Amino acid sequence: MNICASPLAELPPASGFAAAGRRRQRVLAVGVIGPGRVGSALLEQLRAAQPRLLRDSALELKLCGVVASKRMWLDCDDTELNGRHGGAQIWRPNDLDAFAGHVRGSDGRHALLIDCSANDEVAARYPRWLAAGLHVVTPNKLAGSGPLSRWQAIRAACAGGARFRYEATVCAGLPVVQTLRDLLDTGDDLLAVDGMFSGTLAWLCNRHDGRQPFSALVREAHALGYTEPDPRDDLSGLDVARKLVILAREAGRALSLEDVDLQSLVPPALAALPLDDCMRRLDELDAPMAAKLAEARAEGGVLRHVAQLDRHGRASVRLLVLPASHAFAHTRLTDNIVQFSTRRYCDNPLIVQGPGAGPEVTAAGVFTDLLRIAESLEARA
Amino acid sequence: MNICASPLAELPPASGFAAAGRRRQRVLAVGVIGPGRVGSALLEQLRAAQPRLLRDSALELKLCGVVASKRMWLDCDDTELNGRHGGAQIWRPNDLDAFAGHVRGSDGRHALLIDCSANDEVAARYPRWLAAGLHVVTPNKLAGSGPLSRWQAIRAACAGGARFRYEATVCAGLPVVQTLRDLLDTGDDLLAVDGMFSGTLAWLCNRHDGRQPFSALVREAHALGYTEPDPRDDLSGLDVARKLVILAREAGRALSLEDVDLQSLVPPALAALPLDDCMRRLDELDAPMAAKLAEARAEGGVLRHVAQLDRHGRASVRLLVLPASHAFAHTRLTDNIVQFSTRRYCDNPLIVQGPGAGPEVTAAGVFTDLLRIAESLEARA
Repeated sequence: MNICASPLAELPPASGFAAAGRRRQRVLAVGVIGPGRVGSALLEQLRAAQPRLLRDSALELKLCGVVASKRMWLDCDDTELNGRHGGAQIWRPNDLDAFAGHVRGSDGRHALLIDCSANDEVAARYPRWLAAGLHVVTPNKLAGSGPLSRWQAIRAACAGGARFRYEATVCAGLPVVQTLRDLLDTGDDLLAVDGMFSGTLAWLCNRHDGRQPFSALVREAHALGYTEPDPRDDLSGLDVARKLVILAREAGRALSLEDVDLQSLVPPALAALPLDDCMRRLDELDAPMAAKLAEARAEGGVLRHVAQLDRHGRASVRLLVLPASHAFAHTRLTDNIVQFSTRRYCDNPLIVQGPGAGPEVTAAGVFTDLLRIAESLEARA
Repeated sequence: MNICASPLAELPPASGFAAAGRRRQRVLAVGVIGPGRVGSALLEQLRAAQPRLLRDSALELKLCGVVASKRMWLDCDDTELNGRHGGAQIWRPNDLDAFAGHVRGSDGRHALLIDCSANDEVAARYPRWLAAGLHVVTPNKLAGSGPLSRWQAIRAACAGGARFRYEATVCAGLPVVQTLRDLLDTGDDLLAVDGMFSGTLAWLCNRHDGRQPFSALVREAHALGYTEPDPRDDLSGLDVARKLVILAREAGRALSLEDVDLQSLVPPALAALPLDDCMRRLDELDAPMAAKLAEARAEGGVLRHVAQLDRHGRASVRLLVLPASHAFAHTRLTDNIVQFSTRRYCDNPLIVQGPGAGPEVTAAGVFTDLLRIAESLEARA
């Protein structure tokens, strides 16, 4: 081929491209499951973004329905994201598959279900929905950290082209899952993940300086709304372990929750008590935590609640004594932080840090997943 | 519509989706301009990833050519990324538009030019290439921080569907441009960007503790290869200012280099000297830097080289005294760091930190852009 005979100038501009390019309008039907705090924030963000997405990205979002635990709102098709979901329109008994079928429609359009519930029954339906061509996005950790067989069924169901995304399951809106994905997809090798994935435990560790007993800090955090209604849900580290499992699976490790060396901060004697009784006996936390703090100080370090995945796939969630120079020693109050050590980032890791919880930033993480899926959609007649 | 009459189970699975899904093979023709350190690292990464991309993402990369400053290698079409670019095959006089035409081909295929040169003449051709339907990816800052009119021409040229991406222009492989894009695209409002965008200046500030004169540190960094061949290229802050301009434009600010309040560390007397003369007189840096350090210590703070964009669009690059508790006070040696303060991330910012230079991580940033473009490609016959 003599390229001098076909310089760019002599070809018609954009041949074959403009016609097939991104400016052709794409339509994405959206159904939201679980209009709680995150779901409501998301609906608000989508509504606000709709004119801009249509103008700048030729993307039309059609909100086809919202389903709550006991009712659903349908047929917003023609009104797009106009906020009408706030008032009950037509609603029918909650049937999740019927809802999914409604969002998918029968005209071969692109359709996305967003699961903002924290409901295992919903997560159990992802494989079925994905196999039927519906994309699924969720901030719900139950699928990513639940039974490995279900996780594998979800991956297998994506083979047909539907996509499953879950950025907001780890550190809410911070770019964590996508960053790990990009490292791996560009051929890097993951050596270790270290993270502080609980804003509550970060706050408690930051404040735990010996001036007041640990139980007093837990009570303060509880009163401020920093903890779950039952603070043992934070102190157990289970939620942190779920996030670590999600990242480990993203990196190709067949890890399950029971494989994580999870060291709960809740003394066994408190674990099974009714909440009120537990709160009364919270000072049983104090002696072991004071001992840990003394240990850290003897070493000149700080106490931090850390999730770790090493290069052999070993996963742990526990209190660690870290040197005062460690990046985790300088986090701010409730910040989450994650560091990826890889073959390319080996001397110094790649770090992402910031607020890792809250309805608005979690919804934004979900929205980012929606945009990533939308970018990959083909225009359809 | 009675959705109960059309539950998901009764629709054929994946109707209309599997056939149009992502498993249909997509072909992306790739041409690389500038096989220097970054370009060579990229070619190696692409070659290694090729079998995996084809298997997992149904993406076939075709390396159609590599062009250096004085020659080009073409017609790797049929051999894909098999490393043959290492040996000169057919080569012809360097004609960039002819090269672009060759990569684009005439069959309407997807085509991508990757500019790893640092050549303004190449950057000047982006609008033309984009208008002709070629995607462009670059780690080269000249377009993003060059004349605003050219930048606007580039944006306008993307209207036809071709995409221009440049993640690796800011902090190499760290997820910075995409993170800002996602914040904005999901409806967040940017309040401020603060960053340390020079590993060299970070290292110098970290090491500058008064025990040795600043010029000795510069000589040490120069000897270690941490600086550009002419260390004034680092000390001027110009490269940092370019990165800030790129982020400001990403956030919609019509900013140019000359709008940045850029405070060079190079005394005016040294700025115009030949390199050898400058290196001999480097101790002229010492008195002003010692005074800055004394000022920082008097305030109980640390000295850092910081780029800032505020909510009014004012941009500055300068030495700042920061409190010892500031996130920038605890960075590691040559790390880059960027923090985005937004409406949603207002109490604590979103932070990305890590090594922000080097051929491998820069190439990975380019590769990530390639993957993002590939995700959006439609399968074509």
